[in-house]
Amino acid sequence: MTALISEDLIASLNHAAKVAHDDEFAALGRKLARQGVDVETLVTRAIGWSVAIPTWGVGTGGTRFARFPGRGEPRHIHDKLADCGVIQALTRGARTVSPHIPWDKVSDYNALRQEAAQYGLGFDAINSNSFQDQAGQKLSYKFGSLANAAADTRAQAVAHNLECIEIGKALGSPALTVWIGDGTNFPGQQSLGLMFENYLQAMEAVYAALPDGMQMFIEHKMYEPAFYSTVISDWGSSLMAAQHLGPKAKCLVDLGHHAPNVNIEQIVARLVHVGRLAGFHFNDSKYGDDDLDAGAVDPFRLFLVFNELVEAEHRKAKGFAPSYMIDQSHNVTDPIESLMSSAIEIARAYAQASLVDRAALADAQGANDVLAAHRILKAAYLIDVSPILAEARMRQGGAFDPISAYRTSGYRDRVAKERPEVKGASSGIV
Amino acid sequence: MTALISEDLIASLNHAAKVAHDDEFAALGRKLARQGVDVETLVTRAIGWSVAIPTWGVGTGGTRFARFPGRGEPRHIHDKLADCGVIQALTRGARTVSPHIPWDKVSDYNALRQEAAQYGLGFDAINSNSFQDQAGQKLSYKFGSLANAAADTRAQAVAHNLECIEIGKALGSPALTVWIGDGTNFPGQQSLGLMFENYLQAMEAVYAALPDGMQMFIEHKMYEPAFYSTVISDWGSSLMAAQHLGPKAKCLVDLGHHAPNVNIEQIVARLVHVGRLAGFHFNDSKYGDDDLDAGAVDPFRLFLVFNELVEAEHRKAKGFAPSYMIDQSHNVTDPIESLMSSAIEIARAYAQASLVDRAALADAQGANDVLAAHRILKAAYLIDVSPILAEARMRQGGAFDPISAYRTSGYRDRVAKERPEVKGASSGIV
Amino acid sequence: MTALISEDLIASLNHAAKVAHDDEFAALGRKLARQGVDVETLVTRAIGWSVAIPTWGVGTGGTRFARFPGRGEPRHIHDKLADCGVIQALTRGARTVSPHIPWDKVSDYNALRQEAAQYGLGFDAINSNSFQDQAGQKLSYKFGSLANAAADTRAQAVAHNLECIEIGKALGSPALTVWIGDGTNFPGQQSLGLMFENYLQAMEAVYAALPDGMQMFIEHKMYEPAFYSTVISDWGSSLMAAQHLGPKAKCLVDLGHHAPNVNIEQIVARLVHVGRLAGFHFNDSKYGDDDLDAGAVDPFRLFLVFNELVEAEHRKAKGFAPSYMIDQSHNVTDPIESLMSSAIEIARAYAQASLVDRAALADAQGANDVLAAHRILKAAYLIDVSPILAEARMRQGGAFDPISAYRTSGYRDRVAKERPEVKGASSGIV
Amino acid sequence: MTALISEDLIASLNHAAKVAHDDEFAALGRKLARQGVDVETLVTRAIGWSVAIPTWGVGTGGTRFARFPGRGEPRHIHDKLADCGVIQALTRGARTVSPHIPWDKVSDYNALRQEAAQYGLGFDAINSNSFQDQAGQKLSYKFGSLANAAADTRAQAVAHNLECIEIGKALGSPALTVWIGDGTNFPGQQSLGLMFENYLQAMEAVYAALPDGMQMFIEHKMYEPAFYSTVISDWGSSLMAAQHLGPKAKCLVDLGHHAPNVNIEQIVARLVHVGRLAGFHFNDSKYGDDDLDAGAVDPFRLFLVFNELVEAEHRKAKGFAPSYMIDQSHNVTDPIESLMSSAIEIARAYAQASLVDRAALADAQGANDVLAAHRILKAAYLIDVSPILAEARMRQGGAFDPISAYRTSGYRDRVAKERPEVKGASSGIV
Repeated sequence: MTALISEDLIASLNHAAKVAHDDEFAALGRKLARQGVDVETLVTRAIGWSVAIPTWGVGTGGTRFARFPGRGEPRHIHDKLADCGVIQALTRGARTVSPHIPWDKVSDYNALRQEAAQYGLGFDAINSNSFQDQAGQKLSYKFGSLANAAADTRAQAVAHNLECIEIGKALGSPALTVWIGDGTNFPGQQSLGLMFENYLQAMEAVYAALPDGMQMFIEHKMYEPAFYSTVISDWGSSLMAAQHLGPKAKCLVDLGHHAPNVNIEQIVARLVHVGRLAGFHFNDSKYGDDDLDAGAVDPFRLFLVFNELVEAEHRKAKGFAPSYMIDQSHNVTDPIESLMSSAIEIARAYAQASLVDRAALADAQGANDVLAAHRILKAAYLIDVSPILAEARMRQGGAFDPISAYRTSGYRDRVAKERPEVKGASSGIV
Repeated sequence: MTALISEDLIASLNHAAKVAHDDEFAALGRKLARQGVDVETLVTRAIGWSVAIPTWGVGTGGTRFARFPGRGEPRHIHDKLADCGVIQALTRGARTVSPHIPWDKVSDYNALRQEAAQYGLGFDAINSNSFQDQAGQKLSYKFGSLANAAADTRAQAVAHNLECIEIGKALGSPALTVWIGDGTNFPGQQSLGLMFENYLQAMEAVYAALPDGMQMFIEHKMYEPAFYSTVISDWGSSLMAAQHLGPKAKCLVDLGHHAPNVNIEQIVARLVHVGRLAGFHFNDSKYGDDDLDAGAVDPFRLFLVFNELVEAEHRKAKGFAPSYMIDQSHNVTDPIESLMSSAIEIARAYAQASLVDRAALADAQGANDVLAAHRILKAAYLIDVSPILAEARMRQGGAFDPISAYRTSGYRDRVAKERPEVKGASSGIV
Repeated sequence: MTALISEDLIASLNHAAKVAHDDEFAALGRKLARQGVDVETLVTRAIGWSVAIPTWGVGTGGTRFARFPGRGEPRHIHDKLADCGVIQALTRGARTVSPHIPWDKVSDYNALRQEAAQYGLGFDAINSNSFQDQAGQKLSYKFGSLANAAADTRAQAVAHNLECIEIGKALGSPALTVWIGDGTNFPGQQSLGLMFENYLQAMEAVYAALPDGMQMFIEHKMYEPAFYSTVISDWGSSLMAAQHLGPKAKCLVDLGHHAPNVNIEQIVARLVHVGRLAGFHFNDSKYGDDDLDAGAVDPFRLFLVFNELVEAEHRKAKGFAPSYMIDQSHNVTDPIESLMSSAIEIARAYAQASLVDRAALADAQGANDVLAAHRILKAAYLIDVSPILAEARMRQGGAFDPISAYRTSGYRDRVAKERPEVKGASSGIV
Repeated sequence: MTALISEDLIASLNHAAKVAHDDEFAALGRKLARQGVDVETLVTRAIGWSVAIPTWGVGTGGTRFARFPGRGEPRHIHDKLADCGVIQALTRGARTVSPHIPWDKVSDYNALRQEAAQYGLGFDAINSNSFQDQAGQKLSYKFGSLANAAADTRAQAVAHNLECIEIGKALGSPALTVWIGDGTNFPGQQSLGLMFENYLQAMEAVYAALPDGMQMFIEHKMYEPAFYSTVISDWGSSLMAAQHLGPKAKCLVDLGHHAPNVNIEQIVARLVHVGRLAGFHFNDSKYGDDDLDAGAVDPFRLFLVFNELVEAEHRKAKGFAPSYMIDQSHNVTDPIESLMSSAIEIARAYAQASLVDRAALADAQGANDVLAAHRILKAAYLIDVSPILAEARMRQGGAFDPISAYRTSGYRDRVAKERPEVKGASSGIV
């Protein structure tokens, strides 16, 4: 196949950056060496890192007020795979995609796996959807899906999830991610207890259909689209459901799905402790489930989450094998640019957390030397690991500066010609 | 014209409730009399109360995830006026509608006023819209409207607001309400200072076009659709803009547009003090701008807001003449039912606040007798004023129980036959 | 013993209120009868209701900035029991006290039980304290107690809890409530995972010492006194700890210990579902753990919590037997007045929730008739149940208006003479 | 005078760090040079930077639950000055102290100025206190001070502020900072409007006493110690008060005094726009007014605040001359260590913000190139400016690593011998 982004272009741009990069990479190497750290260890870790791209992420997102489409929007899963291929070609740290059903349904999933493989891509967790009605759908999800008061609507939502499991098997997905918007907008609308029981009963049927080797990721969210109560609103409810269902069920942490001020990194630590951390949906937020680019608003929080992950790895926490996915809404940027930028920021947090001097930190913590412990952690965060990330990208054939390379490549212009512009007014709910 | 709801039906239902109502109204009258309050004073106040219905409120709302349309959705301003007419016929406390441009544009505004008058309706503040792109619109508002970095986009948004002023004049609207979604999703996306200056400059042009007797209502909102910063995000920014523009500019308080935990009633008191309280967009919320039904989640907060308003009236605060509008999104209910229910809850808070013994309260406050002061306020809130509200409705020809009467009337079935169902999948952004 | 409050005084004041009360009670009875409800059922329920008063609650509270003592502050557990006796004498719905160790330690607990019984009081859950250092204490809790990094400090905190269990046995307390302030003020200060493990290990030792029939109530709190992380910060962590420890361990819900906007009533429903609801610390709050008077800021939220409790009773939820305690800080009121007022507001919410038409509610919920379901719930909330509460108090010998009776009795003046004023500046941390 | 910290020790430690520092400083210099930036410009700016230390900050803080004193606590203003002198000697960026009355009252302020000058210290804004009662104080502030319902209490608080102005004149303070805790704990406790009017009237009397050249800094805070309403709770109220009083009155921004999720940097931009930015109280927080160390929890937010300040400087905003102070509570660290660490983190944010390419940023913003604009800002934040800060310190005689040098110096051991340990139990309110 023809490369989506010219390898010559990448090589040429990387060459232009070489002198500066070599100086910075060497300086960082000397600095780390003085701390007893071999920079190559970090490069190796950075090369080993990957995060999944959601297929819905390469399209332009929006709000209830409006959606402002961009140029060259992907029309279907094939366009989406190509866009994800660009991200992987340039960043080399986005080796899987996370599909969304029904939007990514095709007639031949084997062919789809091969199509993805051509871009160097595999499939991560598959996502069901019962928060929207589809054309021709028999029963509406207006009042909920897996937790609807009506048994026939719950059954329809179960059937959809069973179909997703089948598709996931065909695509090689390691897990089914279940997020539902079910909840209420009024006190009294439903019995909070009964709604949870209905949900558990429906989920039992989905869980029973999981093949060996496929996990179920339960994703909680505080609110939206329901605004008074949400059936799986917090990690406590998510954990109760996972415990009810069985060992294949784990709890997914989306960074934007928590109450204001909540200490998310501690939730991560709790789920690690109980052996139920499914993984992450990365993004950033300031107010609610803003779905902003990972690391754009609070990069230190992202680092603190990774600090828990690297500590869990360090402590060899039992059953620790989280999945890493991005879940963002790109409303005002080119989604490919935002996803590349985010993938880099996530890798940055991982690299920084890998630099924490864990032995010294444990000593300071054991001695209740508060400021020393904090400064040890902060010291790792302050290191500019950009040269390590760039080195890891380039050694794998990626770009020194993926966003510049992408802009230079003219990819967006090219697909804008192939993919017809969406006509008419942008959607949005007044 | 034929009544939207049969007057005979209303009379018949009211008659059926008469015995119970008379007993409760009389009991309440005796209770109030023991406190030195004449219940007739309260009935008179309740009769004098009215809140505006937004034309967009009679359609089913949604979220960025989905919109689940209801039966008999209004197709245009004429259907919307009929639906508002039903609300007024049954509640008798919703005598104006607040139009939204461009959706409510017609060729003959004089005819529209007469059409509204047939339902006993007038027009309240007119609302411009520059948070969405319309078909055929020259420049996109993707990156903002009145505060866009591009001068030509700002000019387009100004022109739209000038058109709204003209329509408002034709409809007899007392004010133009300006809410914009302008803001940023990323730190650095725009200069926070420059964006505000651009906004002020554009608003100067709008302000200059206001005719005598027309006010400008500036509506702030903390976030959404922009998720990092919003140019008019709080009442402080709103007040700065109003002060910059001139005396016709005032600050509108939407109950759902504030940061978590904020004391909204104190903001009302501040705006009363400075003579810049435009009025309200009523709704309720638990998390963000949830746009839930007024009084559905925190009815005591609604009462506390009205306590400020009645106190301002009592103290004869200078320039105090707020406008009252509902602004809600009805996602899972019949909008007409929700609006009637909300109009009643708002009237309830007004009636309860009218029952506060202000002389006793002032004495307790002056003596720093904290618990006594609180209990005097709470005592008014605990009174079930339903009989007063029902009496006021019935004396004006409205229904004892508007929602039961509406359901009995079959109005929704009737319009569902006339108004074609929206075909295909519900909209929504994934 | 001499009555703390003259029974003649109470009778005389109740007599003065009789005509008005009889009219209102009868009117309410007729109203309820029309709904098919016998008011006597409600009076019986109100008589059966009781909430525990914390011994620390009868002293004036404060903030880190200052404490402003009141007149006649209780000096020791004996004064505190007398003050609680006044609350019970007037309200007749506060039949137990919840002691706090070390402050309430005495040499003879049997005598203390008899002393309490003279006031009609028994003992509810006993509370340990390891968030403060006491004079002569060997090791400081500056860096934590049960979750301290140092094993000897954890052991000291365990020993204190074991002592509390012994005292609880002597007093007839049904449970030990464990709340600790342990946490961190800096990212990195401690390992979030290890801190939890240390906590669990220490709690195992406490749990092992529980006698048959004594439960352990684990109380979570989001933050304060630790401001970056708290080891038991949310109900999920609390539940994990309870599950780890065993069936005697349950989760206590303090209404002020949650993240902003959290739906507390749903947490109650979850803990009911999993059979781990210990009970409540009632109070109200607007911002954080404000410890304001129950029902003072958001009375509808209090009602919604009780709606869950009455529903759980109605559904005969397995193992459902929660404890009810007040936990407030009275900084600007007479604590006895605030506690009486709060006890009444809590009983009010219980009575209102008892009035919900559960059959009609279940029907509306089953039919997804959202607005009808909400209105059924709200209808119960709108009923002014004050006459029922007053009737229940008076039938038991309590006061029609406990706060007026208390003020008339001169109790505070009397004890102010017996209890010396605290000299010097108020404490507080700058 | 004898140096508080041996200059030889500092020099010796700096020498030991020289090789590593020189390498890192040179590498950073080359990197910046490639971006067209002369590192010396940054060193010069870092040398020019200074932040004021609050005298109350060098003592150990606490919470309402407990205070755990440290060793060698300062006993009076003279000890406090010495501790501040240590901070300045090692960091060279803390050249003023901010005194607090009545705690820092002395008989001879001229002598105090000379004493401070010996440590290289001057005096910044003076702080009044009316949130606590002092021994011998005639009227209590239990129900408020400048906004108390009682005129004589307000007058007493005015008199205290007038005294502070006199002391400030004697010390050369450029401003009086007024923060009051006045507010309410119950809806209805006071009239929200009247309380504000009482406050304004009292502040008029204080304002009138300001000499030429002395400003008034009004500090708002959302809540605590009052938990329902606070009279100056937000920047809008603060601005209204400042506008009412006159041009010498400005609005102070404490980073921890805002509602959850609020965009503080935009508030800074607004106050710059209106010419009323007094300056800052720096600290960090996760939940409320946590008073944690600046930059400890959200360092990117601190950077974004400084981005506004550097932009204002760049745009030559009219009347822009903010004051910079730290206001933190050091509960679990050595206050001197925390203050040095914080002073460095604040200087770091200033240096990073100084590295933003403002011309490129303005271009990207003008073109609505969202991602490019964000990346330009973020690029500056990612630079590890530690070598610049260290260079600036060392060139002025300060320490390469102030905290290590402090620990090596044995200062705390020395003063712990001179300053008697606080006996008995730690204070705290249960």
